[in-house]
Amino acid sequence: MVATTREQAERARAAFIRLSTQADRTLILEEIAAALTAHSARIFEANKKDLEAAKDYIAPPLYKRLVFDEPKLRDVIQGIRQVASMADPVGRVVAETELDDGLILKKVQTPIGVIAMIFESRPDAAPQIASLAIRTGNAVLLKGGREAMNSNATLVEIIQNVLAKYNLADAVQLVSTREQVSELLEMDDLISLVIPRGSNEMVRSIQERTRIPVLGHADGICHVYIDVAADPEKAIKIAVDSKAQYPAVCNAAETLLFHRDFKYRQQVLDALQKAGVELRIDKDFGHEFLDFVIAVGTVNNIEDAITHIERYGSHHTDAIVTEDPATAEKFLNEVDSAGVYWNASTRFADGFRYGFGAEVGISTNKTHARGPVGIDGLLIYKYQLIGDGHIVASYAGPDARSFTHKRRF
Amino acid sequence: MVATTREQAERARAAFIRLSTQADRTLILEEIAAALTAHSARIFEANKKDLEAAKDYIAPPLYKRLVFDEPKLRDVIQGIRQVASMADPVGRVVAETELDDGLILKKVQTPIGVIAMIFESRPDAAPQIASLAIRTGNAVLLKGGREAMNSNATLVEIIQNVLAKYNLADAVQLVSTREQVSELLEMDDLISLVIPRGSNEMVRSIQERTRIPVLGHADGICHVYIDVAADPEKAIKIAVDSKAQYPAVCNAAETLLFHRDFKYRQQVLDALQKAGVELRIDKDFGHEFLDFVIAVGTVNNIEDAITHIERYGSHHTDAIVTEDPATAEKFLNEVDSAGVYWNASTRFADGFRYGFGAEVGISTNKTHARGPVGIDGLLIYKYQLIGDGHIVASYAGPDARSFTHKRRF
Repeated sequence: MVATTREQAERARAAFIRLSTQADRTLILEEIAAALTAHSARIFEANKKDLEAAKDYIAPPLYKRLVFDEPKLRDVIQGIRQVASMADPVGRVVAETELDDGLILKKVQTPIGVIAMIFESRPDAAPQIASLAIRTGNAVLLKGGREAMNSNATLVEIIQNVLAKYNLADAVQLVSTREQVSELLEMDDLISLVIPRGSNEMVRSIQERTRIPVLGHADGICHVYIDVAADPEKAIKIAVDSKAQYPAVCNAAETLLFHRDFKYRQQVLDALQKAGVELRIDKDFGHEFLDFVIAVGTVNNIEDAITHIERYGSHHTDAIVTEDPATAEKFLNEVDSAGVYWNASTRFADGFRYGFGAEVGISTNKTHARGPVGIDGLLIYKYQLIGDGHIVASYAGPDARSFTHKRRF
Repeated sequence: MVATTREQAERARAAFIRLSTQADRTLILEEIAAALTAHSARIFEANKKDLEAAKDYIAPPLYKRLVFDEPKLRDVIQGIRQVASMADPVGRVVAETELDDGLILKKVQTPIGVIAMIFESRPDAAPQIASLAIRTGNAVLLKGGREAMNSNATLVEIIQNVLAKYNLADAVQLVSTREQVSELLEMDDLISLVIPRGSNEMVRSIQERTRIPVLGHADGICHVYIDVAADPEKAIKIAVDSKAQYPAVCNAAETLLFHRDFKYRQQVLDALQKAGVELRIDKDFGHEFLDFVIAVGTVNNIEDAITHIERYGSHHTDAIVTEDPATAEKFLNEVDSAGVYWNASTRFADGFRYGFGAEVGISTNKTHARGPVGIDGLLIYKYQLIGDGHIVASYAGPDARSFTHKRRF
């Protein structure tokens, strides 16, 4: 019997409670790493099917991302082992306050609940996200791209077989259709967070259709501002790396801004063109090319650069190149983006590079989690209050007791 | 010339940048406290107008909340002085990691941006929220209830007169109509957070209409579960306090669950009736009465109690009364609510009682902030990356450098 989407979500919710309160999550992660190793042949076979079916209709860069081979599996398994070796974050008491004699308030780290994750082509995302979810005690419903169907089904089946030993198979589930995603977006009583990873249109469409919090970003309109006091060599390196090191991703620069008095502008533009980048002078600001194309603008001063970024940017990652610390500090303070960089490439905006071990995505949200999101972004807290018959009436009226509010840590 | 709602929001956004990066927020808060003291007569006069207009059409409990007199002003001013005396949270570096030689990643606490706050009758909310917003460097657009129109206008005008000295009058603004609120809910490019405080219907209607994150709660369906191992005296005290100490609020209990073998059930019910509480035996679970009415249920064991709360609760605050530590621990771990209490009244769920100094509301969200929300819930972070010409290309290919990822704090 096929479960309805609602039944899937209900089972995921029940599994989340068991996973977060009763399971040995470290052991499960180690067993998943072992199972993926043991069943590698099945995974490669499934992936071959996907590649075969996709080769005629998807573009070469997407095809490349769809490949799941020996080196990718090794990376995935290493990632899971790394996640397994992290200290268990669930149940950690992050703050404790004595409110009064015998009345203790604890702020305790907890999972979020059931997370719906919608992603495209890359099959390595499924085991990565599943392992982050298990580490943090969350259940996850995964909707992958159609082109990775066989790879994702095999990977999730292997993970579920491990979870099933602990009556937790429902903690990681696949959903297969867009209609199911639409149904999940309605279930704000069961799904606590939605993480879409993919095209701008996909992310926006999800944001439009749900009351559930959505973590991620639609646009990645990153800027590099080259100040009058920029070192020309650094300016060239950073402009070229930010745009051309891998232009198809959200942390690649889409606009280059020059201070009008910067003397080496032509050298920077020449280097970009040498790297194969098409220049769009004084136009197309705020456009996400995701390609070897960049908009180029000129500003009068740091204030205008900040205003330009506020107007056209997407609050993802923006960099300044300058040798002047005061100008840099102004930029770092006043540009309201998830990442603000001084003399470094925008391409550093990434969970692995930041040292998070793994990431579920990059957020331009202004609440919960901002920038690359790792383990921390999959956690929230609850307040435990432990008393001995304490009631609020004792703290009201003429003989009211006072709270002590002694912060213990 | 009257500003359009969009112009108001744009000005608030510009004021947010100045407030968060250039202002002496402590000084401003002290001046606001002084100005409210100096202009108390004007405030009381405005409030008198509101009370006069309201007396014929609003219910006595709402009328009582609309009163803004000497003691309430004193509390408000004391609250602002407390907020002023807190350490400035903006710009605090909460974590620092060396990614490589000369490449430093800093996680820096920042404001969220422009916050839209929608609240009902209580005029003390306006200065409280304004002061929390200023402390955290956020701008705020306030929509109060029509019944408090004159009080709110006067309070905000006094606050704006202080802010105007620093070219920051736009950091705290009133919006007056429901149509303006609808417009604001569309402006996800300018408004970063919506905080509604009021009826269930109002909160839900806002959640339905916006892509902007909404912080707060719709329902407060709090439970008290009286275990077989409950101390009867504590059970009586906690049941009566949770329900009857002030039943019109979200942290009052709406359902009382008894373990079927608890021997003093009748005594607890008698005490509730004596406190004027109407009992709804075995019915109306999941209903928010906000009155001297309570649903009463019976469960077979702790598992059933947890299942009942998962099914009917709103994940706000739920309490267990028991002398058995193992049962209590199971409840505290497995009930997925913002507050889980052991031998304490649900009425403790409140920012002041938790020791936060002030609160903007209570959240049942599973992301960003959960439970009573104070200063912390109005802050997020950005990542500052400081390099010396560092590019990602150096960390790729055959001669790839490795990241050091040395966590400094």
